[in-house]
Amino acid sequence: MDKKLPSISLGSLADKLGLALEGDADLTISGLATLSSANGHHLSFYHNKKFHADLKNTQAGAVILTKDASTDCPVNKLIADNPYAAYAQATQLFETNSAVKAGIHSSASINDSAIVGADVSIGAHVVIDEGVHIGDGVVIGANSVIGAGSRIGKASRLFPNVTLYANVLCGERAIIHSQVVIGSDGFGFARDGNRQVKIAQLGGVCIGDDVEIGAGTTIDRGALEDTVIGNGVKIDNQVQIAHNVKVGDNTVICGCSAVAGSSTIGKNCIIAGAVGIINHITIVDDVTVTAMSLVNQSIKKKGIYSSGTGLSETAEWKKSIVHFRQLDSMMKRLKTLEENNK
Amino acid sequence: MDKKLPSISLGSLADKLGLALEGDADLTISGLATLSSANGHHLSFYHNKKFHADLKNTQAGAVILTKDASTDCPVNKLIADNPYAAYAQATQLFETNSAVKAGIHSSASINDSAIVGADVSIGAHVVIDEGVHIGDGVVIGANSVIGAGSRIGKASRLFPNVTLYANVLCGERAIIHSQVVIGSDGFGFARDGNRQVKIAQLGGVCIGDDVEIGAGTTIDRGALEDTVIGNGVKIDNQVQIAHNVKVGDNTVICGCSAVAGSSTIGKNCIIAGAVGIINHITIVDDVTVTAMSLVNQSIKKKGIYSSGTGLSETAEWKKSIVHFRQLDSMMKRLKTLEENNK
Amino acid sequence: MDKKLPSISLGSLADKLGLALEGDADLTISGLATLSSANGHHLSFYHNKKFHADLKNTQAGAVILTKDASTDCPVNKLIADNPYAAYAQATQLFETNSAVKAGIHSSASINDSAIVGADVSIGAHVVIDEGVHIGDGVVIGANSVIGAGSRIGKASRLFPNVTLYANVLCGERAIIHSQVVIGSDGFGFARDGNRQVKIAQLGGVCIGDDVEIGAGTTIDRGALEDTVIGNGVKIDNQVQIAHNVKVGDNTVICGCSAVAGSSTIGKNCIIAGAVGIINHITIVDDVTVTAMSLVNQSIKKKGIYSSGTGLSETAEWKKSIVHFRQLDSMMKRLKTLEENNK
Repeated sequence: MDKKLPSISLGSLADKLGLALEGDADLTISGLATLSSANGHHLSFYHNKKFHADLKNTQAGAVILTKDASTDCPVNKLIADNPYAAYAQATQLFETNSAVKAGIHSSASINDSAIVGADVSIGAHVVIDEGVHIGDGVVIGANSVIGAGSRIGKASRLFPNVTLYANVLCGERAIIHSQVVIGSDGFGFARDGNRQVKIAQLGGVCIGDDVEIGAGTTIDRGALEDTVIGNGVKIDNQVQIAHNVKVGDNTVICGCSAVAGSSTIGKNCIIAGAVGIINHITIVDDVTVTAMSLVNQSIKKKGIYSSGTGLSETAEWKKSIVHFRQLDSMMKRLKTLEENNK
Repeated sequence: MDKKLPSISLGSLADKLGLALEGDADLTISGLATLSSANGHHLSFYHNKKFHADLKNTQAGAVILTKDASTDCPVNKLIADNPYAAYAQATQLFETNSAVKAGIHSSASINDSAIVGADVSIGAHVVIDEGVHIGDGVVIGANSVIGAGSRIGKASRLFPNVTLYANVLCGERAIIHSQVVIGSDGFGFARDGNRQVKIAQLGGVCIGDDVEIGAGTTIDRGALEDTVIGNGVKIDNQVQIAHNVKVGDNTVICGCSAVAGSSTIGKNCIIAGAVGIINHITIVDDVTVTAMSLVNQSIKKKGIYSSGTGLSETAEWKKSIVHFRQLDSMMKRLKTLEENNK
Repeated sequence: MDKKLPSISLGSLADKLGLALEGDADLTISGLATLSSANGHHLSFYHNKKFHADLKNTQAGAVILTKDASTDCPVNKLIADNPYAAYAQATQLFETNSAVKAGIHSSASINDSAIVGADVSIGAHVVIDEGVHIGDGVVIGANSVIGAGSRIGKASRLFPNVTLYANVLCGERAIIHSQVVIGSDGFGFARDGNRQVKIAQLGGVCIGDDVEIGAGTTIDRGALEDTVIGNGVKIDNQVQIAHNVKVGDNTVICGCSAVAGSSTIGKNCIIAGAVGIINHITIVDDVTVTAMSLVNQSIKKKGIYSSGTGLSETAEWKKSIVHFRQLDSMMKRLKTLEENNK
């Protein structure tokens, strides 16, 4: 993309980020780039020794880095305890993709009983049902639908084409991407012969503050009680959260993972992409699950967990999977040999 | 959520559910809860011996349970042959999340050639294309789009932001959740060198009666013939059904599963979450596939099937996956030992 | 579906497809069908010896096939070097599911600064933001939203309920299915204690020509640079493409696969369904990955790759997964036996 980012002086940038500047406060910074691709008006960052050569050769206008690393930096410096977090904050100053229009579009359909805060932006064809509360500074993208009785906390942002069903509580400063669905019915049926009798889902969904939810993610409402997403939770695209799931504060769930009904994930966990978590299990705090693992039992001890076989060339893999099915017989044959060799 | 559920007398509840009441017909019931969390105006249910202690100590206003179990119940009783199915029916009486507005919203765009039944509810900004038939009592949520020639059977409900392409047939009493897509093109190409030539998808989608389809699920139209979803099929969120798939009556497919093109699933199957089913295979009736399994061959015998390795701590798992790739050589070494030990 | 397809004479069909006709040019062809199900007004095709018996017995009006195969065909023939590709082109002549209405619907909300080409079709309730360029002949389905600064190349088609964020570049002749999201924020955070600081995603998405993107697929914008989808790439439903991914020309990605951040896939690859590709890896050209495999390392050599265990009956599988966890000890025991048997 060839679009214009905002420009800012390096001194002003240091002030906004609360960082000490070593260098030219008047330099104009007009974008961010990696150490190796930055030009003289780019801000860059150094947070990993693997890029040490890039640091020494960088053409960047300025680099965010620790005091210790600064001696090897040939250009202007912004000194940070946590350079990567400071870089993250800097990116937010250059964000233009999400510019917001003030006001309520004339084509939006807002129920008279809805309570809408100050300084909101409500896009074209948005539908807001009865009894909804929209906090101050909330942005709702075009064609989104907010079901009856739902509440969206202040400074939250919904991108276009989001659907909230009835009675969804969403905290402050949420970021909810397009095609997200929150509050759809949990998948609950009682079997009566071969017929499935629908269990109406009477709970809601309760989402904490500072939560981000990626495009196409779905979060079902609870059966009797609420589905709960803690504060600071970050959920990537196309994640499925079933009814009555509880996700602890600051946990991160990567793309395409699925959490089945009534399972509980602790705080500060990292669930990598495409992980499956079966129903009615518990994962304690500070657990990492690697990509595409199946969590088919509770995890009671913090640590890193995996499943799967790793990748092989298909011709080799076909032999391995035959033997995988023979593992029980292999084990028996091994034991027989051991007996005979005693 | 702190919302008001409907109130009903226990006697009236027993009548509506067709259950025998043992206790106070005048008691007001204002909600449902589990045995352990219920208060004196809650209805609860007992269907599993694991909750026997909860039953004996329950504070519920009334409990749905079998005649046999009723002697251990300290409160009012509703006697049912299948308490869980009776509970499911009871939940439907307390459902308020899905309240419907009568009438057709003025912003809906309905083609003049569409035939719209009696007592329908059509939300804001809905688009209904030419030749569509909407049955009596159908509810279409805001911002949904119904393609030309599609038909929706009576008493079906589409939640907001659903997309039906052209020529989708949907039976009666369907429940279709938000962001569902039905009738998108099957993924079919003919290779011509490295170029892929699109195979136009000329079939449709045919969905039986009493089907539920979860949020974000996609069902592609057939290449030449129709993709078919049987009566009573229940599909969870973010499931992918490719072109020409046939799903038998009353089969249940849980969240994030994917069924590739031209495969056939029998009746009364349970496909757990995140299962992958490859193309052109057949699964007979009454098969269960456990979570995150890959079905890479036809299943010709009813039963329960699985794949995958189960979860390990990552450090241990890394050793196992190395050996998994060595299974063929391990087997050969085992055979050599056996030869030498004859 | 019981809908009317267009009718065309066999001679005219041969002309349009550029194929030699052997038979009755005046025969009316009114649809396509497989060899075994075709009637006398259907066009069929033969491209695989497995259907040789069907060819000999077909009732089709005409069959597309190679010169070599034509001697065994009892009906009219259309001779093609690549019958399957010719069949693909024929399907496009009978396509009626995607008929388009000309013009811009009065309810569409189009920013004054947008540039809209000739012969476009823009559906009801579409929202087009400032600075958008819409090429000639583009079709945008109802309720779609196009973010500021995005560009859609000529003759592209977006089905209903698509969301493009700001600054997405889409090439010519794209087909983008319903509920697709392009340009949502990449999933990037810098950890500061337990808190995640959002890294604003300043890149865009750049999509080549002749790309098809299936329903419910999500493609995130890049962090600093663009996410790039090459020319001729075909992506199925519910695929997740994370930020900074590069997909090479003519690669095919099947349903429900997920590609994590900053990974690169070569040209002419086939990624089967439900594959997971972890972040920061590279896959060379001409690689096939089979269904539901996890690519957890770069693939440096063209070929076919797989992971997983294959399917077993659950009772057997439970034994295998126990032994999978014991593989390291099995290997040690095997070595001990070998030592003792030297």
